[in-house]
Amino acid sequence: MGPRWKGKDAEAKAFAEPMSGIVYALQSSLHTSECKGSISGCRVLFEANTEQSELLDRACFGQVIMTSQNDTHWYEFTLQEAFYLCYTLKCLKIVGGDGVVKPYENLWHFMISKVEKFPEYFKAYAHLRMKNWLVRSGSQYGVDYVAYRHHPALVHSDYAVLVLSEINGISSGRLKLWSDLYGTIRLCGGVAKTLLVLHVLGISKDNSPVCLENYEIEPRIISRWIPEKTREKKTDSKICSEAKTHT
Amino acid sequence: MGPRWKGKDAEAKAFAEPMSGIVYALQSSLHTSECKGSISGCRVLFEANTEQSELLDRACFGQVIMTSQNDTHWYEFTLQEAFYLCYTLKCLKIVGGDGVVKPYENLWHFMISKVEKFPEYFKAYAHLRMKNWLVRSGSQYGVDYVAYRHHPALVHSDYAVLVLSEINGISSGRLKLWSDLYGTIRLCGGVAKTLLVLHVLGISKDNSPVCLENYEIEPRIISRWIPEKTREKKTDSKICSEAKTHT
Repeated sequence: MGPRWKGKDAEAKAFAEPMSGIVYALQSSLHTSECKGSISGCRVLFEANTEQSELLDRACFGQVIMTSQNDTHWYEFTLQEAFYLCYTLKCLKIVGGDGVVKPYENLWHFMISKVEKFPEYFKAYAHLRMKNWLVRSGSQYGVDYVAYRHHPALVHSDYAVLVLSEINGISSGRLKLWSDLYGTIRLCGGVAKTLLVLHVLGISKDNSPVCLENYEIEPRIISRWIPEKTREKKTDSKICSEAKTHT
Repeated sequence: MGPRWKGKDAEAKAFAEPMSGIVYALQSSLHTSECKGSISGCRVLFEANTEQSELLDRACFGQVIMTSQNDTHWYEFTLQEAFYLCYTLKCLKIVGGDGVVKPYENLWHFMISKVEKFPEYFKAYAHLRMKNWLVRSGSQYGVDYVAYRHHPALVHSDYAVLVLSEINGISSGRLKLWSDLYGTIRLCGGVAKTLLVLHVLGISKDNSPVCLENYEIEPRIISRWIPEKTREKKTDSKICSEAKTHT
């Protein structure tokens, strides 16, 4: 299944503006102005100027929640997005309720206190982002993420992503029952996405995000096996053509 | 969501021939000729004459696997279908590899040896069948069954059915994670079926199928909540119309 571009110029547009360049421009812009986001519940709020706002939209980070009259735009980041901008791209600082910038360890603890499985979800998120995939919530399809090869205005998402992990050898969560697997594959087929399962290996509940480097991602694509599509074609096979000669 | 009939005469046809009558005719026909099915792996094989074959097709029991020259038709029943015909409708005897008719207790043990959760799956199957729903495998939709209000040639299935049970207070299987629930509901919506969850309560691992009478079924329909569709309409509300008068 190839990419499904939206409109005939979409592919050319995407090609002309690779995502790596857009994210780099965003990173530079945020870094230069020493940006800070502030924690609010399970989200991080950020006030962007017009240039930053345009770059955030193009790189698909956060959601605008308010645009005020003096050209400032309020964005809401998910915990993954905020931590990626802060810890991976190092272009956003995050402050707590006390207005003080949180050090990485402190922030790591905070994230895990909000989402127990933050380490594995973040690892998977960062894995895709670092390969220049855009990542959004997949909840409407019953998966963890959907991944786009470029901006959602130009292309439909290619992958429905499930993040699975094992702790002490016991796999958690989804796809443990055949019926769940069948349903998930059927749903993905129905919305023309490929099911991508990211197994996060080596999870340890460390006190620091440095442990992320020890995690490994094992990606697997799961799809229906259609025997007619995969078996050797009779016309291509020597044995069959020989058999034909003898009949 | 109402029934989706196939073609304009389908509803009238179904109304003219209620399923209860068809199943009763099948039951009588099989009972009169003292029919026997024989176990083969996880299926029960049955040789039907032309009249029985027609009734089996109309009542949607089993699948034809072979029609021989002398007008006999070989059917394959699932374990649930065979046990329903045998134990509930009392119109089919089932013989083992030794050619001897298996008594109910013996058969019950055999079914559980093949499918550990046979008791709850059978209870759910029988519950729907006794209410004259036709029940088929739901594996292509990632559920346990699909239920039809009449023959699949006349109408699409209304329900995608998941069978859940609790043993010692621990619920088994599906829908324990939000993402699974979201995905299942989305899939059901996509194929225009309603998700019906049958909770089977009071499961005990008894030595006899008599325990089925102590099981209870708690049916639940699960669907997306769309606030716009369910909230009080402004025009219907006295308070709102009064409020209008005062503004």
